[in-house]
Amino acid sequence: KETINEADGFPRINIGIIDLQWVQVLSEGWAYPLRGFMRENEFLQVLHFNTIEKDGTRINQSIPIVLPITTEDKDRIEGKKAVSLYYENELYAILRDPEVYYHRKEERVSRQFGTSLKDHPHIKLIYESGDWLLGGDLDVVRRIKWHDGLDDYRLTPNQLRQRFRQMGADAVFAFQLRNPIHNGHALLMTDTNRMLNERGYKKPVLLLNPLGGWTKDDDVPLKVRMKQHQAVLEDNVLDKEATVLAIFPSPMMYAGPTEVQWHAKARMVAGANHYIVGRDPAGVPHPRGKEATPDGNLYDSTHGARVLRMAPGLSALEIIPFRVAAYDIKNKKMTFFQPERKEEFDFISGTRMRKLARTGEDPPDGFMAPKAWQVISDYYRSLEAKS
Amino acid sequence: KETINEADGFPRINIGIIDLQWVQVLSEGWAYPLRGFMRENEFLQVLHFNTIEKDGTRINQSIPIVLPITTEDKDRIEGKKAVSLYYENELYAILRDPEVYYHRKEERVSRQFGTSLKDHPHIKLIYESGDWLLGGDLDVVRRIKWHDGLDDYRLTPNQLRQRFRQMGADAVFAFQLRNPIHNGHALLMTDTNRMLNERGYKKPVLLLNPLGGWTKDDDVPLKVRMKQHQAVLEDNVLDKEATVLAIFPSPMMYAGPTEVQWHAKARMVAGANHYIVGRDPAGVPHPRGKEATPDGNLYDSTHGARVLRMAPGLSALEIIPFRVAAYDIKNKKMTFFQPERKEEFDFISGTRMRKLARTGEDPPDGFMAPKAWQVISDYYRSLEAKS
Repeated sequence: KETINEADGFPRINIGIIDLQWVQVLSEGWAYPLRGFMRENEFLQVLHFNTIEKDGTRINQSIPIVLPITTEDKDRIEGKKAVSLYYENELYAILRDPEVYYHRKEERVSRQFGTSLKDHPHIKLIYESGDWLLGGDLDVVRRIKWHDGLDDYRLTPNQLRQRFRQMGADAVFAFQLRNPIHNGHALLMTDTNRMLNERGYKKPVLLLNPLGGWTKDDDVPLKVRMKQHQAVLEDNVLDKEATVLAIFPSPMMYAGPTEVQWHAKARMVAGANHYIVGRDPAGVPHPRGKEATPDGNLYDSTHGARVLRMAPGLSALEIIPFRVAAYDIKNKKMTFFQPERKEEFDFISGTRMRKLARTGEDPPDGFMAPKAWQVISDYYRSLEAKS
Repeated sequence: KETINEADGFPRINIGIIDLQWVQVLSEGWAYPLRGFMRENEFLQVLHFNTIEKDGTRINQSIPIVLPITTEDKDRIEGKKAVSLYYENELYAILRDPEVYYHRKEERVSRQFGTSLKDHPHIKLIYESGDWLLGGDLDVVRRIKWHDGLDDYRLTPNQLRQRFRQMGADAVFAFQLRNPIHNGHALLMTDTNRMLNERGYKKPVLLLNPLGGWTKDDDVPLKVRMKQHQAVLEDNVLDKEATVLAIFPSPMMYAGPTEVQWHAKARMVAGANHYIVGRDPAGVPHPRGKEATPDGNLYDSTHGARVLRMAPGLSALEIIPFRVAAYDIKNKKMTFFQPERKEEFDFISGTRMRKLARTGEDPPDGFMAPKAWQVISDYYRSLEAKS
């Protein structure tokens, strides 16, 4: 209340939806030790070292969390001791002791993404954003809610840690995802559970933590993905009693080896001690395709896992490599790929999956839980109908 | 001898002059803990974290030291256990247990330089270099000499440490440079000496360490610079008895905040415990000038010193900030700039200095030691005569 009244006295900055997603990330503590949008010294450490130093310790923080503002905003807040952040006419936070610095966009995206091409989906947004960055500590005046029926799945790191304690977890393994779960993913998760049991853990718990913030247009929307994930759990493809399904509020950046560190660090903050890393995590096609790189992807598919294993500030987290699963034609299920009988495996690409879904065809038996497939099929057919 | 005979059995790779400069850097230990051209895991650590991990410690290494090779070379050395490195038909080194990996040039230069524009002087060279990188430990078969009359100034880190011990140094402060020394630079060095004396050091020694490797075309060549530096010492502008003039064999990259860490780390390896950092260290104009950045320079002029102060693995080195000196018209000498009487100061830019030198005019009294000015003036007039 007092803070809200106080906010009236400060100049107002209107922020966008991605900015508000970052306010949520920051206020819930995912980006510890950050307590607000980065000041320039933090920004420089992150760009150059992928860490932030606090009390002599270097904490992993690989991606900038910054608030771009326009020159007009900059002039308006000059010399003020705080500013009020509004999204769609609602006050969300007070940013104290503001520090404004120049948004060196080309340098920032080059260091963050390893390219500066403006047709990369997130880089495009950065180039369209304000020419200045506003750093400062946040006092958040209300918990961020999205009123989309999914807010109950938005657990903070503290709530997640509490949940794991309540479940009696002695190991937590996290799986980051922004795509539908097929049985290959599920196999990886159940196999990780088996491995942890073998190593003597009594109650390994899976943190199934789909990314809930901004994604590019052709990704499956959060609402559809959540429905699909719920169907996977209902079909008992994953063990409901040993799984926490929750939403990670961060926007997606498609920044490959730089971003995968963020995905892992945030889950470490939330209590995970094992992290499953995929092939080409947070990857995208290179905007220039095979003209630019041998396989046409922006990042080397092995770099994400390798960078993650070597990253400073993540040594408390065990990195579990993704084993490639494919459809085993003979056994009619997803199994780990065995090169010695490679002709019996079928790699079902995302493109082929989408085509099947759009045309109403079914994928091979055992590729995905049937109810979960129905969700995906309905979604792609609704897109077809619209276009 | 034995190594040389052994080398005959391995495939031969012809390397260029910059590659040989790196062989010198590596073999003399400046890039500790590297013992050869980077393998891919080292390359990834450097690009993402500006460090290399060894025995649980993260050692600063901000710039990649890599050997680009062509696809033809790659095919020729496939499966071999070592290769021989030749420069101008002389064998220089054996590279053992070679690891070849793809040279992701755009990603590399984006992360190293914060831009990927091909008209940056060093980025241009990288884009023209081979499509593969060859990593591996080096056995160097001969000390690298350049036979330019300056080899006696090329002291290795071990030789420098020994020299400092012989001189009884209890503090070593390093000054990196690739330009002629004017009396403003000299003031900074003598003032650092004074400051160290005041702090109780009995014998501070200056490591005056001009960069000796590749520089861009419009920089003053090493030979001229060394003659100029010698003249400065002969004119007693710097204390000869407390100065070691030696050449740093590294090529220049013009990579700003990333490169300044390299300049500092290498001098730390050579025994320096204080490092003087300038404004916009290792900076260059942005290839797009003021269209791209507010002042037309590639890097923010404050970032180099700030990044250096926060860099991992350099905490043993005290960073001494550069105080701005300018020509004091009233007192006819270079002094530290005092904003309260700013109209009495004249900032003599590099452009103006070059113009004076070319036209045979003298700079104001006290700007540079006269013999040293003569060297610069002769050089620029010889350029004029040629063109």
